[in-house]
Amino acid sequence: MAQAPDSAQIGEAWDRIRPYIHRTPVIETTEAVPGVPLSLKLEHMQKSGSFKVRGAFNSLLSADVPEAGVVAASGGNHGAAVALAATRLDIPAKIFVPEMAGPSKIGVIQSTGADLTVVPGAYANALEAALEHEARTGAMQIHAYDGFRTVEGQGTAFAEWEDQGLDCDTVLVAVGGGGLISGAMSWFGDSRKIIAVEPETAPTLNAALEAGGPVDVEVSGIAANALGARRIGSICYDLASSRKIDSLLVPDDAIADAQVALWSGLRQWVEPAAAAALAAIMSGAYTPASGERLAVIVCGANPAPGPFG
Amino acid sequence: MAQAPDSAQIGEAWDRIRPYIHRTPVIETTEAVPGVPLSLKLEHMQKSGSFKVRGAFNSLLSADVPEAGVVAASGGNHGAAVALAATRLDIPAKIFVPEMAGPSKIGVIQSTGADLTVVPGAYANALEAALEHEARTGAMQIHAYDGFRTVEGQGTAFAEWEDQGLDCDTVLVAVGGGGLISGAMSWFGDSRKIIAVEPETAPTLNAALEAGGPVDVEVSGIAANALGARRIGSICYDLASSRKIDSLLVPDDAIADAQVALWSGLRQWVEPAAAAALAAIMSGAYTPASGERLAVIVCGANPAPGPFG
Repeated sequence: MAQAPDSAQIGEAWDRIRPYIHRTPVIETTEAVPGVPLSLKLEHMQKSGSFKVRGAFNSLLSADVPEAGVVAASGGNHGAAVALAATRLDIPAKIFVPEMAGPSKIGVIQSTGADLTVVPGAYANALEAALEHEARTGAMQIHAYDGFRTVEGQGTAFAEWEDQGLDCDTVLVAVGGGGLISGAMSWFGDSRKIIAVEPETAPTLNAALEAGGPVDVEVSGIAANALGARRIGSICYDLASSRKIDSLLVPDDAIADAQVALWSGLRQWVEPAAAAALAAIMSGAYTPASGERLAVIVCGANPAPGPFG
Repeated sequence: MAQAPDSAQIGEAWDRIRPYIHRTPVIETTEAVPGVPLSLKLEHMQKSGSFKVRGAFNSLLSADVPEAGVVAASGGNHGAAVALAATRLDIPAKIFVPEMAGPSKIGVIQSTGADLTVVPGAYANALEAALEHEARTGAMQIHAYDGFRTVEGQGTAFAEWEDQGLDCDTVLVAVGGGGLISGAMSWFGDSRKIIAVEPETAPTLNAALEAGGPVDVEVSGIAANALGARRIGSICYDLASSRKIDSLLVPDDAIADAQVALWSGLRQWVEPAAAAALAAIMSGAYTPASGERLAVIVCGANPAPGPFG
């Protein structure tokens, strides 16, 4: 079994990162899915635009960071999170971004002041450059989802939500590489039902549960740039398989509908990945029992392009 | 003196409308204005996309609404608020919208299911049609800002904020016709400093305070469709002049900068009017004293066009 944190360790991580992060707000609403009461944790208002900065701060604050600092290959939320956390802690950060990430996502990373290199081509090219940088300088990498400190950090979102009076039976969480839901499983233990939601076009956890272990999957679709890990993390797989977590798939058009619903009902413009969990309720992929109280974490808002380019 | 509500009346209004509205979240952040701690009330997440639905619900729930229902002439937040409140209460609503309001704002009203007539031309043409409808049917009008029940309703945003633990010395509020700030003045009395912020291009309160009474002003600029009342309401003028409220003006480009800052720091995409109060801090139009704790109400998010057209 890959080692996962327990709730006490997540509590310590929360103490560690609290001065650096937003306590993201919660809203109770029946507007997102008309007539269905939901508690929404607005974690897309987190610094860097996603929950990933929790894991990044926790990793940096609990490590002996080498003089060469940190390195990441990512044009997405992980890159933005590492860049922001490192620069706020005065740690050198080198981020390799694939050109195909596009100007909007690159702009988010640029705004942190991190040292950024745009690498021609796709993610694999950026990763190669990052590994080369790591080998040459001794800079540290932070895993985007399958690291103990990463999961511990992501779990603090749920510790915080509990502290804000979370009152629900069931929490729905979108899954890419599985860092966020690993944090949920580690924090909640058996105290809440947890539902994993993935796009049909990026079913990493679903495929792994079916195959009896992590397997590579084809990823595509509208949420691929955030939920497009090709293989579920081992921490997530071990937790989800031992707990027999329900894993649901939603079609891309249901995710697009959920994005529109979050704008219409709450004026929140989120990226597709952050609408996936809501899409499971809206589309009927998840049907709550009578009286079952639902909670959804809205996890990222780095749409590309954004409202200001 | 135009009659204004007291805090007890605002408390009663809050009890009246609470089942129908969002308890909008609050976030403490240093990201909107880097390094400056602010408490932000995210009232743009209110139903219909602005605070105005509070006054609309309060007006309808405290009146003997005629069989003909309500009528409004507005292509903006007031029209959306009246349409939403009336349809939720099963009250017939007739909304006359000037064609120039544009498809995005018209779409928000349309989505409520209210009976909508798009009137060729500008606001004056829609108003004429609404007055004709009122005369013919006996439908009731709700004032967009200068009505007792309207002000009472808008004041509930501040009662709610106080209940959420508001901890500040000073509250900055954007002013158009003055309904929202009248609610603030009525609720807070002398317990907090209140700052009025208007675009230089729509200075209704500022001009009135200078002239010693409400006067017509020219309105233009990026926030005109929400803060573009031509003359300050009498309730607002009387409260602001007797309390000697500080009235600040901000240039349009500072408002545009504040819109971008709310996106960059918090992933909130608001309309220009809702960024005006923040713009006063960012631009230095308002300079807090050392240790002064600031709070800003973010009041509307019906940008046109929105992210989905």
